[in-house]
Amino acid sequence: MSAESRAKPPLSTFARKLLEWKRLELPKTNAVVVAGVSGGADSVALLLALEELNRAEKLDLKIVVAHLDHKLRKNSGVDARWVAKLARGLGFRSVIRRVNVARKAGRLRQNLEQTGRRARYSFFAELAKKEGAQVVLTAHTMDDQAETLLLNLLRGAGIDGLVGIDPVRELASGSHLQLARPLVTWARRRDTEAYCRARGVEFLIDETNADERFARVRIRRQLLPLMKTFNPKIVESLARIAALAREDRATLERKAGELLQTALSQNGKTEMARRLSIRGLSTSHAGLRRRALREWVRKCRGDLRRLERVHVLAIDSLVFGQRGGRVVELPGGARITRKRELLEYSE
Amino acid sequence: MSAESRAKPPLSTFARKLLEWKRLELPKTNAVVVAGVSGGADSVALLLALEELNRAEKLDLKIVVAHLDHKLRKNSGVDARWVAKLARGLGFRSVIRRVNVARKAGRLRQNLEQTGRRARYSFFAELAKKEGAQVVLTAHTMDDQAETLLLNLLRGAGIDGLVGIDPVRELASGSHLQLARPLVTWARRRDTEAYCRARGVEFLIDETNADERFARVRIRRQLLPLMKTFNPKIVESLARIAALAREDRATLERKAGELLQTALSQNGKTEMARRLSIRGLSTSHAGLRRRALREWVRKCRGDLRRLERVHVLAIDSLVFGQRGGRVVELPGGARITRKRELLEYSE
Repeated sequence: MSAESRAKPPLSTFARKLLEWKRLELPKTNAVVVAGVSGGADSVALLLALEELNRAEKLDLKIVVAHLDHKLRKNSGVDARWVAKLARGLGFRSVIRRVNVARKAGRLRQNLEQTGRRARYSFFAELAKKEGAQVVLTAHTMDDQAETLLLNLLRGAGIDGLVGIDPVRELASGSHLQLARPLVTWARRRDTEAYCRARGVEFLIDETNADERFARVRIRRQLLPLMKTFNPKIVESLARIAALAREDRATLERKAGELLQTALSQNGKTEMARRLSIRGLSTSHAGLRRRALREWVRKCRGDLRRLERVHVLAIDSLVFGQRGGRVVELPGGARITRKRELLEYSE
Repeated sequence: MSAESRAKPPLSTFARKLLEWKRLELPKTNAVVVAGVSGGADSVALLLALEELNRAEKLDLKIVVAHLDHKLRKNSGVDARWVAKLARGLGFRSVIRRVNVARKAGRLRQNLEQTGRRARYSFFAELAKKEGAQVVLTAHTMDDQAETLLLNLLRGAGIDGLVGIDPVRELASGSHLQLARPLVTWARRRDTEAYCRARGVEFLIDETNADERFARVRIRRQLLPLMKTFNPKIVESLARIAALAREDRATLERKAGELLQTALSQNGKTEMARRLSIRGLSTSHAGLRRRALREWVRKCRGDLRRLERVHVLAIDSLVFGQRGGRVVELPGGARITRKRELLEYSE
C-alpha cells in the first residue's frame, strides 16, 4: 500500500470516547489548551488521546503540558524531566514549575493535599493566561469522582458535597477560563492504564498513592473494595449519584438565586446588597430560603469559610423573630441584625 | 416525706429528649397512638419512655402496642407473648398479628425484608384505623437512619434515596394517618439500650441482626465500623446528610410540582392529565423538568415501578425532538408520544 493511499488507522476506543464526551466543551481547532500532567496513568492517557485525536485530525489543538513539581520526594525532579521528555516526544511544549509544597503548607498551616491542589490550579491559571488558553484540562477519572464523593460523605457534606468533581467549571469564580475534566464521567482508572499500555507508553507510579495516612488512599484501598462486595458497580453508582446531585444542586441554586434577587429588590434600595427584605423570604420554602440566606452571606462577605449549618439556621430564625434588636454573630466577626422588616449585614 | 408532699421524680434524659423532639407532631392528650414494638431495645425504650411521659403527666395517650410475629424463627411466638406481657405490665393493651412472612415472600417473589416491612405497615395501618388512632410510631434510631442512607447509596439512589427514613410522613399516600419515628433524629441505638437498662427492663435480641447474609447487617458490622475510622461521628454525619437531603428534596418536589401544574394547565384542557404541554417545559431548568416529567408519569400510571433514569431522559429528549411521531416505551407497556406541542401518555 503506498503512502498516498493508506487509510487512517481507526481511532482507539479511549480516544473515541474522549471525542464523543457529550459535554466536551473544548474548542476543537486553532486553540491553545493547557493539560495538567502529573505523569500518572490518568494524565498520560489523556495526553496520548489528545495527541491521537490531533494526529487523526479530529482535533487541531495546541497542547501545552503543565507539570507542577511538588518537591515532596527526592526524585521529583526526575519525574518532572520524564514528563517534559514525554511531551517533547509527542510534539508538545511543556512548562515545569517547582513549588516546595511541604514548606508552603507549613507556612500556611494547611494540609499537604490542599496546598498542593491550590498550587497546581494557580499555576495552571497563570500559565493558561500567559499562553492565551481558554481551557485547562485535568485527567480526573470516575474513580477520583467516587473517592471525592466518599471523602465529602465522610465529612458529612450535604448535597453540595455529593456533586463531587464538576466535569466543567470556571477555573476561578467569575473567570472566563474553563476547567474541564473530560474523563470524569466515563473513564475508569484501569481504562487509562490499559490505554497507556496499548500505546506502549510508560507512566509514573505516585508513591503517595500507597500511603494510608491519606484518607483518599484508605478510601481507595479499604472502603471502596468493601463497598464493592455490596455492589460490583459501586464506582459507577457513586458517579451517577454525583451527576444527579449536580443536576439537583443546579436547580436549587438557581431557584435560591431568584428568591435572593426578589428579597434584595424589595428592600427599596436595590443597590444595597447588605440589606435584605424579609418579605417574600418568610413565606418561601425553608430549604430554598436557607440556601438564599447562605448565598446572601457569601455575596456580602466574599466567601463561606467557617459558615456552618448552625449559623444559617440562626439567620433563618431571625426572619421569623420578633421585631428589632436580634443579632447573629458570624465566625470571623461579621454579624447579621434584624431591623424591622430587614436583615442587615455588617462587619 | 409523706406521700402527699412527695415531689415527682425528674424525667429521664431519654424521655425528656423524646418529649422535646421538635417535630413531635403527636397529639399530646386524649388520643390513641399505635406503637410498633418488636421487643428489641429500640422499641422497648420508646414504649418505656411513652409510659414515663404518661406517668409524669407530660402526655396523656392511650397506647396500643402492635407486634407482628413474622414466624421466621421457631420461638417467635415466645417473643410475641413476651411483648404482650411487657405491654400489660406497663398498663397498655397489645395486639399480636401472626404472618408467615417467608411463605408470603415466596408466593410474591419478594425478598424477606421487603415482605416483612409491608406486612408490618399494613398491620399497623389496619390496627390504627380500627382503634381510631391518628398516629403510628416506630422506634427507628439514628443508627437505622445511617444504615438506610448507606443501603440506598450502595444501590446508587440519588438525593431521593439519601433522605433515608422520614421522621414524619403519611402512612400511605393521601392517608390522614401519620407515621412518626420520634427517635430517628436524635437517639443512638446505644441510648435505647442504656435507657432500658436504667429502667431495669430486658429487651429481645433479634438473631437476624447477626446474619451477615443481610446487607443491612453487613453495613452495621463491617461498613460503618470502617467508616468510623475516618470519622468517629459518622452516624451523626450521615443523619445530617439525610436531613439536608430531605430539605432539598422537599424544595425540588415543590418546584417540580409547580412546573408540572403549569404544563398541565397549558394543554388547553386542564382536566386531561395525560396530555402535557411542552410549552414552559422546554425553557425550564433540566433538573426540574426531569423531576416534573417523572412526577407526571407517576400521576398517570399510579407508581414509578421500574421507571429508570434512562426512561426519564428519553421522555425529556421528546420535549426537544422534532415535531410528531416520536415515542418512548415505558416498562410495563405504557408509552409517551410526542404529538405537536404535547406529550401524551397512553397505555
